[in-house]
Amino acid sequence: MKDLANITWNEKVSFIAESEGHKISMDTFPEHGGENKGVRPKPLLLFSLGGCTGMDVISILRKMREKVDYFNIQVEGELTEEHPKYYKKIIVTYQFKGENLNPENVKKAVHLSEEKYCGVSAMLRKAAQIITIIEINGQVIE
Amino acid sequence: MKDLANITWNEKVSFIAESEGHKISMDTFPEHGGENKGVRPKPLLLFSLGGCTGMDVISILRKMREKVDYFNIQVEGELTEEHPKYYKKIIVTYQFKGENLNPENVKKAVHLSEEKYCGVSAMLRKAAQIITIIEINGQVIE
Repeated sequence: MKDLANITWNEKVSFIAESEGHKISMDTFPEHGGENKGVRPKPLLLFSLGGCTGMDVISILRKMREKVDYFNIQVEGELTEEHPKYYKKIIVTYQFKGENLNPENVKKAVHLSEEKYCGVSAMLRKAAQIITIIEINGQVIE
Repeated sequence: MKDLANITWNEKVSFIAESEGHKISMDTFPEHGGENKGVRPKPLLLFSLGGCTGMDVISILRKMREKVDYFNIQVEGELTEEHPKYYKKIIVTYQFKGENLNPENVKKAVHLSEEKYCGVSAMLRKAAQIITIIEINGQVIE
């Protein structure tokens, strides 16, 4: 099984990335020669991690018949100080809202994603420390 | 230095990812409960790698006064067979077009990005084998 992407130079330091017909723009800030017309490449790693685990978790909670009203994943990546700079530490905060959410089911869904399903998490964990926080209705439960 | 992203559940298994004001949609195929309304999370790792090294390379070539007419980076990620599936091998093909491109300068720009500047490459290399191919005007030079 393979995935394929094409990243095509646009102008200055902006690029268009495409995979399976879906396109996004990448760019950077003026101080690095860009015009800030798209997302920087590095935070895409945080998008990838959040999206991967988010899809797992919402699917598992649906199977558990948990009713989720709101679900946000805040992903914070802390960079190394030396070049090449990459994320040495990533804090993933799962934020749920819902009146009758069962905290044990929520924890179980997050742990299943982290330990069993999420390939992005498995991959990035080889380079970074990943820390998990779980909040339900504004309260930290783990 | 930190980067921050928010990945917010939209509907079914689709999410909106945001960082520094830039938003993208993530989704997956119907066989995994999605509607294919956005890029899948995992190929974003390939976008991130291509964008990171692409920005380095085009900036270095500009400093070298090389005239690039076209520049595409094809990134192919080969997945592990076992869950959690992640990219165990990534093939990065740098494709340049330009009449008077100096192959030695092109190679040097790519090597500088890989070895010195590109943090995404440094990070993903801890989990995957990364193979580099360089083409100028359709000819493989490395």
